Amino acid sequence: MSEELQKIFYPKSIAIIGASSKKKTLGHELVRNLLNFGYEGKIFPVNPKAEFVHSIKAYKSLADIHDDIDLVIIMVAKQFVIQAIEDCHRKKIKSVILITAGFKETGEEGEELEEQLIKKINEYKIRLVGPNCMGLINTKPGVNMNCTFVQGEPHRGGIGFISQSGALGAAVLKIIKKFDIGLSQFISIGNKADISENTILEYWKNNSDIKVITLYLESLSDSRKFMTIAKETSKIKPIIAIKAAKTTAGMKAASSHTGALASTDTIVNAIFEQSGVIRVDSTEQMFDLAKSFDRTFIPMGNRLGILTNAGGPAILTVDEAEKSGLIIPTLEENTIKSISEFASPEASLHNPVDLLPAANAEAYGKATEIMLQDNNIDALIVILGPPLMYDTIEIGKYVCEAANKFNKTAIFVFMSQDENISELSKLLEVHPPIFNSPESAARVIGEMHKYKLIKEKISPEESIESIIKETSKQKVSDILNRHKGKGEFYLDFDDIYEILSAYELPIVESLTAKDTKTSVDYAEKVGFPVVIKSVGKELLHKSDAGGVILDIKNKDELIQAENKVISNLKEKNLDKKLEGFLIQPYIKGGIETILGVIKDKSAGHLIMFGLGGVLVEIFKDVKFRLHPLSSADIKSLYQDIKGYEILKGVRGNLPVNFKYLEENLTKLSNLINDFPEFTEIDFNPFILKPEKENCKILDARMKIRI
Amino acid sequence: MSEELQKIFYPKSIAIIGASSKKKTLGHELVRNLLNFGYEGKIFPVNPKAEFVHSIKAYKSLADIHDDIDLVIIMVAKQFVIQAIEDCHRKKIKSVILITAGFKETGEEGEELEEQLIKKINEYKIRLVGPNCMGLINTKPGVNMNCTFVQGEPHRGGIGFISQSGALGAAVLKIIKKFDIGLSQFISIGNKADISENTILEYWKNNSDIKVITLYLESLSDSRKFMTIAKETSKIKPIIAIKAAKTTAGMKAASSHTGALASTDTIVNAIFEQSGVIRVDSTEQMFDLAKSFDRTFIPMGNRLGILTNAGGPAILTVDEAEKSGLIIPTLEENTIKSISEFASPEASLHNPVDLLPAANAEAYGKATEIMLQDNNIDALIVILGPPLMYDTIEIGKYVCEAANKFNKTAIFVFMSQDENISELSKLLEVHPPIFNSPESAARVIGEMHKYKLIKEKISPEESIESIIKETSKQKVSDILNRHKGKGEFYLDFDDIYEILSAYELPIVESLTAKDTKTSVDYAEKVGFPVVIKSVGKELLHKSDAGGVILDIKNKDELIQAENKVISNLKEKNLDKKLEGFLIQPYIKGGIETILGVIKDKSAGHLIMFGLGGVLVEIFKDVKFRLHPLSSADIKSLYQDIKGYEILKGVRGNLPVNFKYLEENLTKLSNLINDFPEFTEIDFNPFILKPEKENCKILDARMKIRI
Repeated sequence: MSEELQKIFYPKSIAIIGASSKKKTLGHELVRNLLNFGYEGKIFPVNPKAEFVHSIKAYKSLADIHDDIDLVIIMVAKQFVIQAIEDCHRKKIKSVILITAGFKETGEEGEELEEQLIKKINEYKIRLVGPNCMGLINTKPGVNMNCTFVQGEPHRGGIGFISQSGALGAAVLKIIKKFDIGLSQFISIGNKADISENTILEYWKNNSDIKVITLYLESLSDSRKFMTIAKETSKIKPIIAIKAAKTTAGMKAASSHTGALASTDTIVNAIFEQSGVIRVDSTEQMFDLAKSFDRTFIPMGNRLGILTNAGGPAILTVDEAEKSGLIIPTLEENTIKSISEFASPEASLHNPVDLLPAANAEAYGKATEIMLQDNNIDALIVILGPPLMYDTIEIGKYVCEAANKFNKTAIFVFMSQDENISELSKLLEVHPPIFNSPESAARVIGEMHKYKLIKEKISPEESIESIIKETSKQKVSDILNRHKGKGEFYLDFDDIYEILSAYELPIVESLTAKDTKTSVDYAEKVGFPVVIKSVGKELLHKSDAGGVILDIKNKDELIQAENKVISNLKEKNLDKKLEGFLIQPYIKGGIETILGVIKDKSAGHLIMFGLGGVLVEIFKDVKFRLHPLSSADIKSLYQDIKGYEILKGVRGNLPVNFKYLEENLTKLSNLINDFPEFTEIDFNPFILKPEKENCKILDARMKIRI
Repeated sequence: MSEELQKIFYPKSIAIIGASSKKKTLGHELVRNLLNFGYEGKIFPVNPKAEFVHSIKAYKSLADIHDDIDLVIIMVAKQFVIQAIEDCHRKKIKSVILITAGFKETGEEGEELEEQLIKKINEYKIRLVGPNCMGLINTKPGVNMNCTFVQGEPHRGGIGFISQSGALGAAVLKIIKKFDIGLSQFISIGNKADISENTILEYWKNNSDIKVITLYLESLSDSRKFMTIAKETSKIKPIIAIKAAKTTAGMKAASSHTGALASTDTIVNAIFEQSGVIRVDSTEQMFDLAKSFDRTFIPMGNRLGILTNAGGPAILTVDEAEKSGLIIPTLEENTIKSISEFASPEASLHNPVDLLPAANAEAYGKATEIMLQDNNIDALIVILGPPLMYDTIEIGKYVCEAANKFNKTAIFVFMSQDENISELSKLLEVHPPIFNSPESAARVIGEMHKYKLIKEKISPEESIESIIKETSKQKVSDILNRHKGKGEFYLDFDDIYEILSAYELPIVESLTAKDTKTSVDYAEKVGFPVVIKSVGKELLHKSDAGGVILDIKNKDELIQAENKVISNLKEKNLDKKLEGFLIQPYIKGGIETILGVIKDKSAGHLIMFGLGGVLVEIFKDVKFRLHPLSSADIKSLYQDIKGYEILKGVRGNLPVNFKYLEENLTKLSNLINDFPEFTEIDFNPFILKPEKENCKILDARMKIRI
């Protein structure tokens, strides 16, 4: 496979079927761009009517070319595409970029054409980019290929960029020089009929030309595969992604809390978090971050130094830095002393160091060097406010040259002087990232530091082992077998109780009584105070209908309570559906959490954990992780919610039993592994306390499709 | 007062003390900028050594000028400043801008100089801008004044900009033309020795040249005054502000929850929210929003239409719009029909309308008009992806001309084509705001719509009336009088109980027993189950020391509980401090909230309300409002927290008694009004239920300084 991709990204010769001598056509523009950027390989325009295209001899058909061809670009009208693929096959060509649009993005007819196309390329073992894409760029000297129809000279660097949207790709290409975004390779993947983001990620994973990967996606081609590849890749180099969400609404028809909380967006977040992908909201954020990974070092810690010639911008930088998890440490005494030797007497020498507008290039350069040597800081932002009397470019040059001497994170900010960014970057080929706003610089350093921490935590593709006995599995298997062929439905409480007991998931002791005498016996058995809950296949929302009464202290109260429930149900005409009462001990205190599972159509099972109770709908303080869980996933499920602070104990409370929580997460993951038939599970509330034996699931719902 | 300010912003003649013929000095640059921008008034350079400055005759001293002078700019070295002020006084000049730095921003010596200066100008009734500022701009035709030392031709429009940082002001001036930010007036207020943001806000409130006010502040000169003026102003025109926070740490030494939650930042938020000021984080956000208020209409609703030639950018716009509280409605049938008549057959005609890259200027223009006529949308974003074959400027012109015909919110996006923004804005003087990113456009329309809603809710400067009887006030007065001269301290529970009872704040029934027999009597009196709490002046953190036991059901349990508390205290060597037991009924259920007061050194009293319990530290779901409260403030205190959803009732629960909550907020505000001696108050938890009589304050702390 890699050979075909190699020929796509590093071709030694390219044939363009649909190259055109007619100005203002895509087939004309693309060839011109190849020529203008100085492609170092052979170009063969193919056009039955033209003799030459941009002074290059044109061929009537692919068959007429007798040289070796690495890559074919197809940009003929859609009705001729299949023919062109046939031609490629005849020439034994395996690498194709299909620019032409009009496929599945345009409706039914196009969809059929795309299916036909996919059949052909599978048959011919052709690897194909597109259709409906805008091509590819590789800036590597010796390749020098701008094989797109977007004008301009791509600016060199270490960024790989995959775009599912042509327009967004074009927009980025328009600004890369201006904002000093150094591109290594760019690919527009269009409809992803064959080559998808996963193919490219895998290909770029060990490609040393690519230092950092950026992605614009509208859909994930295969979320499981994405997660596997992204996990391996982001251990090696950062991946930054925009995933545009087409809908923010929760999954429809989900009646469990877990289901209601699982939106397309939360699932994408889970996938990205689990695989170490950094999610951003805009192309601006994406490339600010990417160019920093490309041009400077990942900070070893979160201590930020700031050098400036004006107070206001420095204050904004400190604000943003603190929001981004950075701290502004005190500088070493030596640093302050050294800077004081040349700074103006009115300069402020404590971090942020303010040299005042009087600072010239030499002072800026010296201060940059001195600060980068300070052991109290891990990263440095140098801000140059709009100049009054000095040559800004010269100051920039001194700062960048100073920064180049150290292996420490550094960003230089030309405040509000965009035009200087490209000028300086032209002047000094190697330089730290240059920004136009100091707040973005602070945000970026915060993100880079977060990546450092995430990278260390990404778990290998191991999933936790099963801790369930064979006999337990057999018990659950027996229960589920009883329901074979029923379709998708909610299990009744008796089944749930048996299943959870078999897997030692701590469902609260529960006895179902059909009459008052048994109720009293059972209550005495579990011990007062007790809770009673109405039971009936058609009584799903128990508490809404007044079917639950808590804290019943004795026999008399119990009898009263049951009568009360019956009269509540009668009011709502539900009393006929009552089949009995569940008797459970009344559990006081502890922390209400929720533990659940949802099965998403494309991503499969996800496990959710978070704070429960009335809060779950409001604060949505929950995390999702794709099943199967690794041990790192289990930890992040409870450590990455805000409520972790509460679980750890506030106001002198002891922490809940985390070991036991982990054990239960493991057992739930094991259950899904053993029985993928489960489609929705809610343990809500799952009460956590410091003592293992007091942690209890007070209510549970389970849905299966069988 | 207004006359002096009028002469500062609209001077007919300006004398510059410190104007210089030496290049690269501030005194040279400022005169050049005045000339270059074409100031329409007389300029009198004052310099004892120069004969002329930029070809204008120079005067040895102010006294030598025999014409009327409206405004004097002082930019001499700091040691000559007082002398220059004396000269102004002698010429009866009342309007001065003091550019010179080296005052209180540089330490003690400078501070003294600034105090001397303030004394002088007060004595002479001179209104002064600065010191340590960079001047002023007024672009109004007929004034045409760039009286700063920043080069460039300010771009005209309706934005007023006040900056406390010179560098930030300069940074903005550098980019205003490029991003089509139309400035009306700009003032750099420097050290605010006399004229502050409050002076300017009041002056601009009814100034018809100013359509929208922008502010960069590092400190609020007088937060009370700011609130009053900003409230009146933002009823008339929007105020957008950046307040850089120097610290995010909570107020130190505050031992109450309310105090711990009150940071500089939360207080600024309260002030801004109460007065309708829109807070933003960066100059970019500020001017994106300001130029939209300046160049288009405030949307009447939140329904957004999108017109594009590419899918990707439209998807990102939809995402951002939904985050910003906008909805993407279905278009009227007629709209779709009309567009279909000229759009490409493959175009997508549902909102977002995607005309595909084939769309030319005429199609864009027509579609813009048709969509703006659609009654289902309140605002329109027109996105133009990077062009392939069409003239972008021409498309932009058609779109803007179409938008100009309607009184509806419209933003045009030249995606990634900054250079075109200024070109188009030059070509077409009146035009809707032009952006380079569609996400920012969506965010801005969301913010504008929020302003519309906020503006309607800003309450006049009325504060709620007292509902407290004179006899109640007298009771509290008597209690506080007993403590006169004690300084700042926590009241003991008996005092608190009496005070809250007097103001009918629903403190739970509480009896203090000194021995077990009395405890039992009292418990029977309030009714089992009860709670006991250890009482002792030096036992502040009751629950931490094991001094609280809940849900005591009978006499035996009570005796056991008291023994348990004593042994708990003994363990911590605190038993000697025990003075008795508080006996209270045990309240079950309801929603835990927190209600509190904190007195900030500069802002005065603030009242806080929010969700209580263990959550308060984690989710910080609380709101602060400056005392005294208006009826709108009372509503926003509970309606603007996330937990409002819980208060309204979830899972079939009834809503809490909001009327009674409002009554208690009123009583608390009355209490602070009557007795400003209170410095900290915490009612935590304050249990809310549907029935008024079941809403109870379970614990209270009060600190006074007397």
